[in-house]
Amino acid sequence: MTDRSFAARHIGTSHADQDAMLKTVGQPSLDALMDACMPALIRSSDGLALPAAVSETQAQAELADLAAQNRPARSMIGQGYYGTHTPAVIRRNVLENPSWYTAYTPYQAEISQGRLEALLNFQTMCADLTGLPVAGASLLDESTAAAEAMLLARRAAKKTAGDVFAVDHRVLPQTLAVLKTRAEPVGITFRTADLTDPAAIPDGTFGILLQYPAADGTVHDWTPAIDAAHEAGALVTVAADLLALTLLTAPGELGADIAVGSTQRLGMPIGFGGPHAGYMAVRDALQRQLPGRLVGVSRDSSGAPALRLALQAREQHIRREKATSNICTAQVLPAVIAASYAVWHGPEGLRGIAEHAARSAARLAASLETAGVRLAGDACFDTVTATVPGRADAIVAAAAAAGVNLHRADADTVTIACDETTTDTDLRTVCDAFGAALAEHAETRIPAGLRRASAYLTHPVFTAHHSETAMMRYLKRLADKDYGLDRGMIPLGSCTMKLNAAAEMEPITWPEFADVHPLAPADQTRGWQTLIEQLETWLAEVCGYAAVSVQPNAGSQGELAGLLAIRAWQHARGETDRDLCLIPASAHGTNAASAILAGMRVVVVACDEAGNVDLADLDAKIEQHADRLAAIMVTYPSTHGVYEETIVEVCGRVHDAGGQVYVDGANLNALLGWAKPGRFGADVSHLNLHKTFCIPHGGGGPGVGPVAVAEHLVPFLPSDPTAETAGPVGPVSQARWGSAGILQIPWMYLRMMGAEGVTAATASAVLAANYIAARLRDHYPVLYTGKHGLVAHECILDLRELSRSSGVTVEDVAKRLIDYGFHAPTMSFPVAGTLMVEPTESEDLAELDRFCEAMIAIRAEIDAVASGQVAVEASALRAAPHTAAVATGDEWDRAYTRSAAAWPAGVGAAYASQGSTSAGKYWPPVGRIDNAWGDRNLACTCPPIEAFGE
Amino acid sequence: MTDRSFAARHIGTSHADQDAMLKTVGQPSLDALMDACMPALIRSSDGLALPAAVSETQAQAELADLAAQNRPARSMIGQGYYGTHTPAVIRRNVLENPSWYTAYTPYQAEISQGRLEALLNFQTMCADLTGLPVAGASLLDESTAAAEAMLLARRAAKKTAGDVFAVDHRVLPQTLAVLKTRAEPVGITFRTADLTDPAAIPDGTFGILLQYPAADGTVHDWTPAIDAAHEAGALVTVAADLLALTLLTAPGELGADIAVGSTQRLGMPIGFGGPHAGYMAVRDALQRQLPGRLVGVSRDSSGAPALRLALQAREQHIRREKATSNICTAQVLPAVIAASYAVWHGPEGLRGIAEHAARSAARLAASLETAGVRLAGDACFDTVTATVPGRADAIVAAAAAAGVNLHRADADTVTIACDETTTDTDLRTVCDAFGAALAEHAETRIPAGLRRASAYLTHPVFTAHHSETAMMRYLKRLADKDYGLDRGMIPLGSCTMKLNAAAEMEPITWPEFADVHPLAPADQTRGWQTLIEQLETWLAEVCGYAAVSVQPNAGSQGELAGLLAIRAWQHARGETDRDLCLIPASAHGTNAASAILAGMRVVVVACDEAGNVDLADLDAKIEQHADRLAAIMVTYPSTHGVYEETIVEVCGRVHDAGGQVYVDGANLNALLGWAKPGRFGADVSHLNLHKTFCIPHGGGGPGVGPVAVAEHLVPFLPSDPTAETAGPVGPVSQARWGSAGILQIPWMYLRMMGAEGVTAATASAVLAANYIAARLRDHYPVLYTGKHGLVAHECILDLRELSRSSGVTVEDVAKRLIDYGFHAPTMSFPVAGTLMVEPTESEDLAELDRFCEAMIAIRAEIDAVASGQVAVEASALRAAPHTAAVATGDEWDRAYTRSAAAWPAGVGAAYASQGSTSAGKYWPPVGRIDNAWGDRNLACTCPPIEAFGE
Repeated sequence: MTDRSFAARHIGTSHADQDAMLKTVGQPSLDALMDACMPALIRSSDGLALPAAVSETQAQAELADLAAQNRPARSMIGQGYYGTHTPAVIRRNVLENPSWYTAYTPYQAEISQGRLEALLNFQTMCADLTGLPVAGASLLDESTAAAEAMLLARRAAKKTAGDVFAVDHRVLPQTLAVLKTRAEPVGITFRTADLTDPAAIPDGTFGILLQYPAADGTVHDWTPAIDAAHEAGALVTVAADLLALTLLTAPGELGADIAVGSTQRLGMPIGFGGPHAGYMAVRDALQRQLPGRLVGVSRDSSGAPALRLALQAREQHIRREKATSNICTAQVLPAVIAASYAVWHGPEGLRGIAEHAARSAARLAASLETAGVRLAGDACFDTVTATVPGRADAIVAAAAAAGVNLHRADADTVTIACDETTTDTDLRTVCDAFGAALAEHAETRIPAGLRRASAYLTHPVFTAHHSETAMMRYLKRLADKDYGLDRGMIPLGSCTMKLNAAAEMEPITWPEFADVHPLAPADQTRGWQTLIEQLETWLAEVCGYAAVSVQPNAGSQGELAGLLAIRAWQHARGETDRDLCLIPASAHGTNAASAILAGMRVVVVACDEAGNVDLADLDAKIEQHADRLAAIMVTYPSTHGVYEETIVEVCGRVHDAGGQVYVDGANLNALLGWAKPGRFGADVSHLNLHKTFCIPHGGGGPGVGPVAVAEHLVPFLPSDPTAETAGPVGPVSQARWGSAGILQIPWMYLRMMGAEGVTAATASAVLAANYIAARLRDHYPVLYTGKHGLVAHECILDLRELSRSSGVTVEDVAKRLIDYGFHAPTMSFPVAGTLMVEPTESEDLAELDRFCEAMIAIRAEIDAVASGQVAVEASALRAAPHTAAVATGDEWDRAYTRSAAAWPAGVGAAYASQGSTSAGKYWPPVGRIDNAWGDRNLACTCPPIEAFGE
Repeated sequence: MTDRSFAARHIGTSHADQDAMLKTVGQPSLDALMDACMPALIRSSDGLALPAAVSETQAQAELADLAAQNRPARSMIGQGYYGTHTPAVIRRNVLENPSWYTAYTPYQAEISQGRLEALLNFQTMCADLTGLPVAGASLLDESTAAAEAMLLARRAAKKTAGDVFAVDHRVLPQTLAVLKTRAEPVGITFRTADLTDPAAIPDGTFGILLQYPAADGTVHDWTPAIDAAHEAGALVTVAADLLALTLLTAPGELGADIAVGSTQRLGMPIGFGGPHAGYMAVRDALQRQLPGRLVGVSRDSSGAPALRLALQAREQHIRREKATSNICTAQVLPAVIAASYAVWHGPEGLRGIAEHAARSAARLAASLETAGVRLAGDACFDTVTATVPGRADAIVAAAAAAGVNLHRADADTVTIACDETTTDTDLRTVCDAFGAALAEHAETRIPAGLRRASAYLTHPVFTAHHSETAMMRYLKRLADKDYGLDRGMIPLGSCTMKLNAAAEMEPITWPEFADVHPLAPADQTRGWQTLIEQLETWLAEVCGYAAVSVQPNAGSQGELAGLLAIRAWQHARGETDRDLCLIPASAHGTNAASAILAGMRVVVVACDEAGNVDLADLDAKIEQHADRLAAIMVTYPSTHGVYEETIVEVCGRVHDAGGQVYVDGANLNALLGWAKPGRFGADVSHLNLHKTFCIPHGGGGPGVGPVAVAEHLVPFLPSDPTAETAGPVGPVSQARWGSAGILQIPWMYLRMMGAEGVTAATASAVLAANYIAARLRDHYPVLYTGKHGLVAHECILDLRELSRSSGVTVEDVAKRLIDYGFHAPTMSFPVAGTLMVEPTESEDLAELDRFCEAMIAIRAEIDAVASGQVAVEASALRAAPHTAAVATGDEWDRAYTRSAAAWPAGVGAAYASQGSTSAGKYWPPVGRIDNAWGDRNLACTCPPIEAFGE
């Protein structure tokens, strides 16, 4: 690692900085620090077998070579993935803009109003188009959205309704596969049928799923099936294509309870299968059942409209083993793009795009019929299925040779999908492959009875920004409201908000990667395959496992895949009684939720007062549940931010009892290069590529959560969702390689860092956390530490005693940090009343110091309250954050000055360099938001403009 | 033009908006408006022969096909263009960021502090590295910088020094060619000599130019030549490579008076020749002679440090025919990139890069010598020249076949340049071509006597941002200080601040375009050649000329090229006495400056009270100067923003008198599609591709100023600067195709707009200007109008009477507009005491209205002063702009409220959409800047950090 290496750019602190920090921490060297805080037992001695690091330029050149091995053809494969033009104004100003992609999940709503507004647009779009009034802020993909709908239907259906989930056989194959995976562990009987016949709904059905338009392109009036299901007490989910819904009667108008689907074709590149934003919309009565995130309108301390995540009490990390879903992220960046695409095109524009696709399909259908080809059904939107006995392979091959990919459904069937990008040349190529002549015009194939009459996207936001100048400014105004890594530190414990380097990000928009369909012929996707193989190999190596699957498109899905692998392995060995998962009390709630969804019961293991797993309780629980023990899920380093000394012992005891060990990879940034979970006792882990491996948080997704397993579990990794024969464990995500389209980022990271780089990064992250702990220890107690009083890569500041004595809450401190120019640390996790700080390796010393100084200044503010100088209600802490409107208000009757409100501790001046001392101040666009008011007055679509009077 | 066409995105107003605007203007239709305001005589009836418009996607696909026809090889050609790695963090956050590229020239310094800081970094870098204390904010390229140095030397040398400019023959060939072009018209005798012999300095020499290192790579101690020149009373210019100066004794330390050069290799892609930032640095005594722009430190109304352009009284548009240079732009965006590259790498990093290049060259030199090849000189930095009698072609061909381009200096000579990107593989390829073996190590070839001892880049800014996270934030903080088109309207008359669409901008960073050397073999550059040929053809067509040359890399160079063409044509016809250029009193000062530099005398023609050319005075001047009349330069529509009715008459009278007609293309945006200067009487024009054709202003460059000529002038277009035999007119820019690297932008614009699109854009721009005139007429007199009371594409608001009655100045209004969220219109041009507003076609109606409402509100503020309600000194107008620091100050003793200061007319609330009503407010980082103080206390390098105390 040289000073000009990428690692030296990725790691924020220089060698000189680190020497100074080590002095503060009281350690002579980085190695000594790691020796002191990491148990010797877990230390890996065999290094990392990664290719030697190369420069940014060289890594991009290698990646360009891989890109060149992909040969993107024109895709008319469809099957859930459609050609779309990402508007350049959105690509440049959102997808390639750090202000959007480096932002965190909008939990600190006051500094997230921009992406919350974009998500509200998304929700409004989904609600309008589906005709269902409440839509969430995106789900992971269409197929997992369908799985969530299945679980929601079971919760909401009459208790007497039975355990059957019945799915029309025209549903997308990948959705069928994911539903199968998800149904069995939770005791749902999964059935497919031809639901155009309402009588085919089986007895005992609590929910049905219909695809609209169907996978073969046919468009059905599902009213009879919907009515029949409702009569049987079942709920109806319609998987609907939002673009089609600009022309088709909305599912809500047909009577559906739930609609799900993908928003990929609204401007998001196919990217070899993902990431794309799934959506779910429901009728009013189901709004509190909605899984995932929901943006709602509330009001701030000045009474102005303000957005925030609504109904958060539903979230899996709060409900833990009572959770009904393990979804703990969304697809914010793809959702922002889809919503922006709707803002850009507006209702007329979207309808025009849909009409182009429909017209193309109608011309194709007429052409094929004229040539004597039989089609599946008369009604279609954009997709035509041709029955060509024995000729499917030849036709697909002929089209491919001419540069157009079609979908071979089976030996006798070819499906062709049209979209926004379809040209006459494409249609002619297809016709040639069938031996048909292209018709110039054709009658629409949208059934008269299903033509949409209702309006949509009527809110002014969908018509106000149709020039590029207006759109660019709108996107910038939204971005300007938000606080991302491009402004300053986001010291979120457990979330690892590290650098997302430009050299890592650039390749995701290279067309040779972005424009590849996941079902394209293998000889067109060699570059993708090699990239994924290399990445999986590298990830397996750094974690000490035998194999990795990148399929899970979020950490939660990785957890599920890991637990399903354990379960399937045990079942294969005949140990079908093992259904119990031990989870330490300190664990993230998602762990428990995932265990439930994997068909396990959860037993909580106590932690001792130092936050470590209580070995005695572990023994007791093992003994008590003996033969039912399936697994233990532990996070390492623990969620308390320390390297537990007993981890090897814990692994051993569980193994001895016949259980498997699942190590949650959330905190892998504290291990990489120094210890490998697969070597110190774990059987399976999931990783978070959006944490340790530099995929940005994107404002709350996309994430990637690969599952990594030891040798014996390799056969139980998730299957290809479109394979004709599935493996022992089905797919957990819609696409074979999950969110493939962003895997260039961790590939670039590992290629540029190499073994030495990632090892240095880990130690630098641990040093940064210990530096903060050392600097702040005298001002805030550091809650948990390992031996030598050291923490791992994060530290917990305990405010409970200060809160008791002063009345100042953790939330007050978090919001006050905004005035100081910071995103708050993690609040009240894993311990209520605390702040967990994870600086990562990417922050420089000046920023670490700026944070420490802000926290110290806030401590003085707390002391002023505690000593009675100022009442907490009258303090700047409670009134925080302060907007520019407040700080410049004509009235000022507060107990503190305006400068104390807005410019504490020289905010802004810290950034003075050549001129202008008051720049660099981030102004929150709203004051403290009233969450409870918003939940009581739930509003989840765009409010009318009149709401924004002076 | 359909609603989904690019034109509908580029044009800000919808058809419905335009109907409403036409009502306000009092015209029934766009056509009627154009009929009413544009004289029928100039109207073109033959349409535009442009390819039919295609979509963004299709245009990019066509451009990608052209890109694929370029085959960038590894370049070791050098000759002023070197391989460099643009750091991804700079590419993404500057070069691809609208906040940087859509900004205007920083004349409104209060809202330009970010780019001014970047330019101050640039100046500091140039000053430090050259060892000369004052550096400008960039020039157009190295060769024109040398030409400016020549002119500066003549001004500053002893009056007795003679008229000879003597240049060492090792100066870059393109610089020699440009100097020759520029010397002759202004009466300078240009000589080349071997100045390693001081005796070779000719008698009568006022200045000498030395290259350091020389074009052949040799490094000379120029001290004897410098001393001899000084003794002869001449000034010494050294053309120096800044990267080399990290290792070599600085020119200032050798005694040079002036240093010039290119900063291309500091991170800016070669881009087929440009744009790159040239630089000039001078000793203290010459600071007020410096051509171009100079950033200086001053202070604002609060006494805080603040940056602005210094010594503006030197600028050509103010000095007019007394100007000593016609440079009226800079290369801000390339200069920002070069400065950011220095900030990113710091002194150690730059030295490391230089050492890599030097080590590579030394190894190559040793290898070739070992193989018996004779080299030019023993001392070199990064470039080696090999003497290979009769073998140059074969060696160059062999290397090219292996993927590396070398420079064939002549049949016996090959020059090889190493740089940041040079790899061992490259060196081996070169050695192979020579039949040599690569030496693993070699002694340095930097002469012991010339090794740099002095420090450089010692200001903290060059060491504080070396992690990518820190750099990303620094660049964002700078961008956040500035107001660009991405925030709101920049209604600058005559500057045409229209949309720079993302689809136009994206291709400039495509490597197939960016990585091509201008001297690469023609078979590697077919895509570039086709692009340029097409663009030149399209530009000639839309202006009605026979041919266009894109070589001039700024409008000023286009003017010069046009006048030189006229002059050369007249000389070729034996009319060598024609040396007089008529220029209307209303003309931009640059016209006069260009005429002087083209060797002409300027005679001013009066304008009548309506701002039109006074025909009687024209006749008088023609008669008076009869046989000396060379040309008239007129701007059309006039700088007063009206379509003069008499233009055809003016052209006719000048032609009748034997003169040529030059129509300045500054206002072409009011003609395109409706009239062609080449058809209504002009012989030559220059265009501004950074105005009408969408190249962004980049914060003050790069521009492109092609020259367009009628058939008879075609042979007199500028020559290829590296051609062995020049045409009758030499080159005006360093590179054959000028700033080729950004020509994709106008190409995309014309390809996506087509004839119909550009025609609609023109009418929409005219409508927008007339709409503003109509809405504001009752509040501010509109100074000049044509018949029917209409203006063209801009309108002049006359504040003179209001100023007289109230004391409120034009500057007060301009600065107050910042509080309202606007960039001011053009101030006091063409008439002192007025504001010239050009909205362009890209603004939407909401933004036009927001501007009108701000101006109307300001009129009320002026009235309050005029009526004595508030003294002008105590008014918000005089105190504007208001910073956040001021508006939140603990003290407030002003005659107006804080909300009146910061939130006039609902600023911010105008942008409320889904939440947060107070977002969207732009806060200027500094208050009103004291220009005079800064000029009296001139400081043009980074101030010490201590200047920024609380």
